[in-house]
Amino acid sequence: MNKEELRELLEAVSQGELSVDTALTKLKLQPYEDLGFAKIDTHRGIRQGAEEVIFAQGKTVQQLLGITTHMLDNAADSVLLTRLSAQQAQALRQSVKLFYDESAHIGIAGERPQNKNIGNIVIATGGTGDIPVAEEAALTAEYYGNRVTRLYDVGVAGVHRLLDNAETIAGAKVIIAVAGMEGALASVIGGMADCPVIAVPTSVGYGASFHGLSALLSMLNSCACGVSVVNIDNGFGAGYLAGMINKMQERV
Amino acid sequence: MNKEELRELLEAVSQGELSVDTALTKLKLQPYEDLGFAKIDTHRGIRQGAEEVIFAQGKTVQQLLGITTHMLDNAADSVLLTRLSAQQAQALRQSVKLFYDESAHIGIAGERPQNKNIGNIVIATGGTGDIPVAEEAALTAEYYGNRVTRLYDVGVAGVHRLLDNAETIAGAKVIIAVAGMEGALASVIGGMADCPVIAVPTSVGYGASFHGLSALLSMLNSCACGVSVVNIDNGFGAGYLAGMINKMQERV
Amino acid sequence: MNKEELRELLEAVSQGELSVDTALTKLKLQPYEDLGFAKIDTHRGIRQGAEEVIFAQGKTVQQLLGITTHMLDNAADSVLLTRLSAQQAQALRQSVKLFYDESAHIGIAGERPQNKNIGNIVIATGGTGDIPVAEEAALTAEYYGNRVTRLYDVGVAGVHRLLDNAETIAGAKVIIAVAGMEGALASVIGGMADCPVIAVPTSVGYGASFHGLSALLSMLNSCACGVSVVNIDNGFGAGYLAGMINKMQERV
Amino acid sequence: MNKEELRELLEAVSQGELSVDTALTKLKLQPYEDLGFAKIDTHRGIRQGAEEVIFAQGKTVQQLLGITTHMLDNAADSVLLTRLSAQQAQALRQSVKLFYDESAHIGIAGERPQNKNIGNIVIATGGTGDIPVAEEAALTAEYYGNRVTRLYDVGVAGVHRLLDNAETIAGAKVIIAVAGMEGALASVIGGMADCPVIAVPTSVGYGASFHGLSALLSMLNSCACGVSVVNIDNGFGAGYLAGMINKMQERV
Amino acid sequence: MNKEELRELLEAVSQGELSVDTALTKLKLQPYEDLGFAKIDTHRGIRQGAEEVIFAQGKTVQQLLGITTHMLDNAADSVLLTRLSAQQAQALRQSVKLFYDESAHIGIAGERPQNKNIGNIVIATGGTGDIPVAEEAALTAEYYGNRVTRLYDVGVAGVHRLLDNAETIAGAKVIIAVAGMEGALASVIGGMADCPVIAVPTSVGYGASFHGLSALLSMLNSCACGVSVVNIDNGFGAGYLAGMINKMQERV
Amino acid sequence: MNKEELRELLEAVSQGELSVDTALTKLKLQPYEDLGFAKIDTHRGIRQGAEEVIFAQGKTVQQLLGITTHMLDNAADSVLLTRLSAQQAQALRQSVKLFYDESAHIGIAGERPQNKNIGNIVIATGGTGDIPVAEEAALTAEYYGNRVTRLYDVGVAGVHRLLDNAETIAGAKVIIAVAGMEGALASVIGGMADCPVIAVPTSVGYGASFHGLSALLSMLNSCACGVSVVNIDNGFGAGYLAGMINKMQERV
Amino acid sequence: MNKEELRELLEAVSQGELSVDTALTKLKLQPYEDLGFAKIDTHRGIRQGAEEVIFAQGKTVQQLLGITTHMLDNAADSVLLTRLSAQQAQALRQSVKLFYDESAHIGIAGERPQNKNIGNIVIATGGTGDIPVAEEAALTAEYYGNRVTRLYDVGVAGVHRLLDNAETIAGAKVIIAVAGMEGALASVIGGMADCPVIAVPTSVGYGASFHGLSALLSMLNSCACGVSVVNIDNGFGAGYLAGMINKMQERV
Amino acid sequence: MNKEELRELLEAVSQGELSVDTALTKLKLQPYEDLGFAKIDTHRGIRQGAEEVIFAQGKTVQQLLGITTHMLDNAADSVLLTRLSAQQAQALRQSVKLFYDESAHIGIAGERPQNKNIGNIVIATGGTGDIPVAEEAALTAEYYGNRVTRLYDVGVAGVHRLLDNAETIAGAKVIIAVAGMEGALASVIGGMADCPVIAVPTSVGYGASFHGLSALLSMLNSCACGVSVVNIDNGFGAGYLAGMINKMQERV
Repeated sequence: MNKEELRELLEAVSQGELSVDTALTKLKLQPYEDLGFAKIDTHRGIRQGAEEVIFAQGKTVQQLLGITTHMLDNAADSVLLTRLSAQQAQALRQSVKLFYDESAHIGIAGERPQNKNIGNIVIATGGTGDIPVAEEAALTAEYYGNRVTRLYDVGVAGVHRLLDNAETIAGAKVIIAVAGMEGALASVIGGMADCPVIAVPTSVGYGASFHGLSALLSMLNSCACGVSVVNIDNGFGAGYLAGMINKMQERV
Repeated sequence: MNKEELRELLEAVSQGELSVDTALTKLKLQPYEDLGFAKIDTHRGIRQGAEEVIFAQGKTVQQLLGITTHMLDNAADSVLLTRLSAQQAQALRQSVKLFYDESAHIGIAGERPQNKNIGNIVIATGGTGDIPVAEEAALTAEYYGNRVTRLYDVGVAGVHRLLDNAETIAGAKVIIAVAGMEGALASVIGGMADCPVIAVPTSVGYGASFHGLSALLSMLNSCACGVSVVNIDNGFGAGYLAGMINKMQERV
Repeated sequence: MNKEELRELLEAVSQGELSVDTALTKLKLQPYEDLGFAKIDTHRGIRQGAEEVIFAQGKTVQQLLGITTHMLDNAADSVLLTRLSAQQAQALRQSVKLFYDESAHIGIAGERPQNKNIGNIVIATGGTGDIPVAEEAALTAEYYGNRVTRLYDVGVAGVHRLLDNAETIAGAKVIIAVAGMEGALASVIGGMADCPVIAVPTSVGYGASFHGLSALLSMLNSCACGVSVVNIDNGFGAGYLAGMINKMQERV
Repeated sequence: MNKEELRELLEAVSQGELSVDTALTKLKLQPYEDLGFAKIDTHRGIRQGAEEVIFAQGKTVQQLLGITTHMLDNAADSVLLTRLSAQQAQALRQSVKLFYDESAHIGIAGERPQNKNIGNIVIATGGTGDIPVAEEAALTAEYYGNRVTRLYDVGVAGVHRLLDNAETIAGAKVIIAVAGMEGALASVIGGMADCPVIAVPTSVGYGASFHGLSALLSMLNSCACGVSVVNIDNGFGAGYLAGMINKMQERV
Repeated sequence: MNKEELRELLEAVSQGELSVDTALTKLKLQPYEDLGFAKIDTHRGIRQGAEEVIFAQGKTVQQLLGITTHMLDNAADSVLLTRLSAQQAQALRQSVKLFYDESAHIGIAGERPQNKNIGNIVIATGGTGDIPVAEEAALTAEYYGNRVTRLYDVGVAGVHRLLDNAETIAGAKVIIAVAGMEGALASVIGGMADCPVIAVPTSVGYGASFHGLSALLSMLNSCACGVSVVNIDNGFGAGYLAGMINKMQERV
Repeated sequence: MNKEELRELLEAVSQGELSVDTALTKLKLQPYEDLGFAKIDTHRGIRQGAEEVIFAQGKTVQQLLGITTHMLDNAADSVLLTRLSAQQAQALRQSVKLFYDESAHIGIAGERPQNKNIGNIVIATGGTGDIPVAEEAALTAEYYGNRVTRLYDVGVAGVHRLLDNAETIAGAKVIIAVAGMEGALASVIGGMADCPVIAVPTSVGYGASFHGLSALLSMLNSCACGVSVVNIDNGFGAGYLAGMINKMQERV
Repeated sequence: MNKEELRELLEAVSQGELSVDTALTKLKLQPYEDLGFAKIDTHRGIRQGAEEVIFAQGKTVQQLLGITTHMLDNAADSVLLTRLSAQQAQALRQSVKLFYDESAHIGIAGERPQNKNIGNIVIATGGTGDIPVAEEAALTAEYYGNRVTRLYDVGVAGVHRLLDNAETIAGAKVIIAVAGMEGALASVIGGMADCPVIAVPTSVGYGASFHGLSALLSMLNSCACGVSVVNIDNGFGAGYLAGMINKMQERV
Repeated sequence: MNKEELRELLEAVSQGELSVDTALTKLKLQPYEDLGFAKIDTHRGIRQGAEEVIFAQGKTVQQLLGITTHMLDNAADSVLLTRLSAQQAQALRQSVKLFYDESAHIGIAGERPQNKNIGNIVIATGGTGDIPVAEEAALTAEYYGNRVTRLYDVGVAGVHRLLDNAETIAGAKVIIAVAGMEGALASVIGGMADCPVIAVPTSVGYGASFHGLSALLSMLNSCACGVSVVNIDNGFGAGYLAGMINKMQERV
């Protein structure tokens, strides 16, 4: 509510056009539901254009169930759950309708939304081992209505695999580059593409990969322009952000 | 050059419509100029829509001058130089026309382009000490034609300063959040905005800030959606990427 | 024993008012009990106003039982055990009366003291996953007689949840801010409150959270005044210290 | 403004007892002054009981002068500046009255407030090299009206120096333990005292002290109860927090 | 294809000696097979003289089987698999002929090639615990036709064991030095030998070995000439590179 | 063999007093036994006054058995095994006589030597959780004939427990200080004692103890004189070195 | 000296064919010169085929001069000095003939050897800022008689610059890949080449490059085969090792 | 004062043999001098057999002078100052007699004590660059009366230099091994010697030596027995401890 709207509201109250109670509601609406152990941000759909997402890791099944059913009972047709273990999924499924992808650890409670296939997000991985993180990104992006083009196992040690897909890269509105080990994929793609590249370091590797630190540092130091980075293994974050950028053209 | 174009080219050669020499040129055009110590990527303007930018740190004045004059003599009206020290700027100025911002360490050789004021990039800083990095981002974004709204010193320790500018944040197409110390600015803005947020950790701080590591880790772990991160103090990278996203709506 | 008291004691011995043996006892009282594998600090109740607490992690059941029963047999009505595993709790319960909270890993052997509800400690968490650490703090603070107000899941990515509880924050004598991931909660609360804020980083998160390091550094670099930090996941330490501060007003 | 007050305000507007303009002001008061490069938090005195403090490091003299004079011209009798270099101090002194302590890098612009000598904060250091950080804490605490007792060079390698001052420690309401190298001072004092101990790691040391990291980790892992930690070399933060705790008894 | 060859090809097309389709194939041959989840680099045998190797860690049995059988069905007589767990090996064995070494976690699908015993690679270990990594190197080198001399348990704490084998070291064409803990083996061997030394840090050790970091840093800082380093526990990489160097003399 | 002895040997050969074969043996005695996977340093007893010790971690039962029986069959009455798991111990016991301490993970194959009770090594721990590492040190020292005085659970958070044992500390020839968490014990003991102090950091703790890193850094930065440090959890190393120092007086 | 030679020597002594003194010399030749502050390894030319090299950093001019002149006076025609500062070079030049390259910090005292142009070492850099390290490698390799092909500024952000030089890469016997920032150059070259690639991380970069750590980790984790790594900025080590490998074919 | 002595003292007071004042003095003697900024541990000579040493780094000239003259005026004939800069030394020299070694940064105020040449401490360095740290150790050890044998530049890359000095090593009572870079010297010496080895990592090196971290970790992980470690560049600590061990035989 901006200053002008506030002035109008107050003048409506002043002139008896608006009751105090209604004004009070408008001014002090509680934009979340309090379940005690969780405060569901019901206002987020309005404020940010997307309902709250549940980060399942470290939550008990009771907590997951409480939040999910509350959201389904109120506003939402579906609820996205990330980092949902197979065990948690199985337990949830007793009580709610659930789509579950075990590799990506993504769950969708309620009605899985149809993909609107907006724009084009290309998701590339360095290797086969990076696919679970890439799928977390892909399923997230598809959940929010984006078209996703998968380009897996195009790591830089055989750079012709990447070059041969130059057209796919050129056709992207946003690219997600998913790689572990030395994480060089982001730089090479960043140098080929003229759209934003979201780099996702993965914990794939061993020894001096230090659980993704090597790929993370590599991506942060990319000498290519237009590259930004999210947390190690954060496929969800990349998919969400890619969707946000991909759909900007729709908003005009 | 895609497969279809290649077929057409070969057929033109086959039917004598295209000479071997011309075809050779088209197939094997050297897309950079070799100065020995540097290979200027002259193809980048076509491939990525923006000329190569010169990272001045660690280059000798001779190298800077060689690259800059070569680019100005050939394609470019202006050349952007980042991390240009006052000393380097003074030396360059002997030989080329140069705009220089000492705080941001940004130089523009040749004709500084007029700002086209496209879209709206909001650049916020946690404190006053973060302004040099923010200005590097701002001058970069403006160089590429973007409108920039500056929102400085709105750190989270007095969160009302940020909330009071909620409209500015709501009006952004992209936001750059620049902060050192604990780097929490990115998360709070990320929770308020419905557009992409590019987080820039800065080396502002002391002790356990470890030259920006604290802010970097904080931003990578942001619990807000739509946030991605660039290197510590990388104002240029943030400004460039923000411009790329901001101008996506223009391309439709 | 200060210098004056020492002079008085010696003069009493000199004048035969105090026997050598009694003086000896007073001067050389062994202020702990030696169980061989442990030296119980029986003097701590007098010196610091609170009995020794047992850190159960890494102790055998025999050791835990030995220390607990010795303390209950002598001075204490109850004994607080922290980081007590469910297995250890089950084994202890064979021999002593035990209250056990599995989420917080807190055990109380003997008679659980009634909460005196002194003052007001507000314990806030960034997310639902931080609740076990918050409960360790809460149960500790309640054990020592403090009133605790729980304010869970108010992380900064939806800062209105926090602002809506501004009154709760304003009513606190001390606040404990428990958060993992980017740990920004401490800074935002620190900027809102006018009382001491004890920040507890948690190991909640993944990737570049590096088991709590990200939140720890973030909290140490807080730009808000009045914030100090304890070890990662150290709910007990925060609860104990908060109680110490909260009860200072009682002592006047 | 809480819900009840808001209802009363709205009812006053509804009944014509309050003009729209006055209500507007009350609802939308801008609680800071915007200098462009800085947003001075003028509301902080009311919200947190202490005016904003200027962190001078990394600010230009023009910025420091702008903020300081603005604050002195408006609400404040004096302004505290931390991490103020001798050079900055000399430049400031041209335009404003300034007390400056070169060792502690503390400046006080305007009228230095008389110390009210409230309570008792004991500030201990491990060595002589830690004194500058300790003095930053001491001058800060005194600025806010607290009595400070200095106990310097009582490091644990000669623990009798500490034990000999047991009465000083027993007489404290809060203790600040300042130490570099192995930082063990905090633990030993923490075991002797029955009041909160604020540990300040310093960057004093060499080699594996890693600029204060060793002392920082040591203090975070303290096995003593009642100890919390602030950033490396953060004397100001410790002094401010200690004053907050020390003065709690006054508020009853 | 170099410039001259390209000119010749185009002239052949121009003169009708080569059909457009054949030229197209030659110019745009897809040098890999796309299995969706993997893009097998079938061109590598020609480009680099060795077929692609499968890094089994993190791949599902289905993926391993898909890649292996595709390779065996097409070009390869055998396929090398590294970091293959006993479980994966057992599952693979249901469908393909497989040699498996459980200690080295090396698998060879198809016909295990006969060792051609070319040159001489000496593989030394600091201790018995380093043998699995050394065997990964040895089996890899033997797979590619190299003679391997094993020199195990010659760590520097009993340097006479190493000196006594000076002739073995002198007879090597390449040496692989495998060591955990302090990793000093590489330096001592580097000072004795006049051939390239490939150092492999291992994760053998505890405490401050930090999972191989200590040995890694030690080897990178070797004061001996001719020493280079591969990733922690990367026996495969060392064996492959050693073979490459060892066989250089064959190529003349 | 020094230069003079060598001259004598050669002159004996020259004058026919010594056969070539005998001289050869003397000059080229193989001072270790080669088992293929291990080279047992049989010369160490002569060179360093103590037989080789077996580091059991990471060795197979076959390897342990091979080395142990070879040593027992040849020179040794007993063999010390460190970091021997309960599983390994049980398997070994099938074939050799074995003393095993499960807490310290120490095994002694063959005849356990009687303790000669030489000198006096005091072993102190900060807490009860450090006892397994302390016992590794104690059993090692006793194995080599040293008298050991145990002083457990005297951590600095209750420094009177340590001061009360000042006489024990004063009576030591060498002290081993074993502590995790903040590792301050070494500094306080170092300031009290006038004999060498060997500090052993342990991995006891959680969070920012980073598996013993905190204690390690703390001990390395000790401001007390006469303190040196061994690897995290390296009780064996401390016990061995302490014995070496303790027995120096015997050698005169 | 091996066992057979030793037997022969002893038999010669036994039969009076060799005097005791001569035998003594042969058995106990001091293979270095002792200057007190330095022990020059005069035996290295025989043992390893290359004279000792002087690491000038941290040595006084007196020390450098002492070692250099001693070597020139005895065996060597020339002496290679690395990490020689301009100041040190100027001082040395007063007394010895010196070639000095200021960018590479390489000095050659005495007669600079003519390059024999053996084989072909390709040295590639990611950027212009990496040239000093590349030149250290190049001058070292040329000093030892190797042909060097320089390929500078071919970083992966414009991968066509690298691909366009595929022939140069294909023609190499060894490649040195020098890069800072994300260090991806090594992986891309490693995937193109069929010869050993020596990766040299440089400290070029800022922020999260952490003085070369990012490039170092990236190169250690390279997914390409045939890549090994030397220390950050270690151009000398790479040049020396590359020469060793390059000249292996000569030795047959 | 032990229990028996305390009883005797009290009985003497009880029987009038000792006045209260004398007893008071004995019981409460202030074992240090308080200069305000420093508390000189005058009791240390009695308690630990050596006067307090002044760590000059970070102290002002006034502080150094105050402590030094106080000590010389009271008990001490001479005062040892470590890490004394040339500037500090020059300033001190105005007021007190001072021996100063600029390389080792060691100062001795007052009468430099004659070396009693007790026992034998061998100090070895890996290279010439490690000599300043070695000399800090050597001068410290000589100050306390120990004989020192210097063995410089015997690094492991030419291990024969070390083996050739096997007799020197065999003749040591204690050895100090000083090395930077990979720090392997400690392990090789540790394997040769039968006396305690004190390892001193130095910050000599570059790149991945990380200012001594590499050598430190290497030495902590030494596989040789009898090795312990002090802080990076801590020559004083090693020299002091070596003297303590070296002189143990004297005490019998």
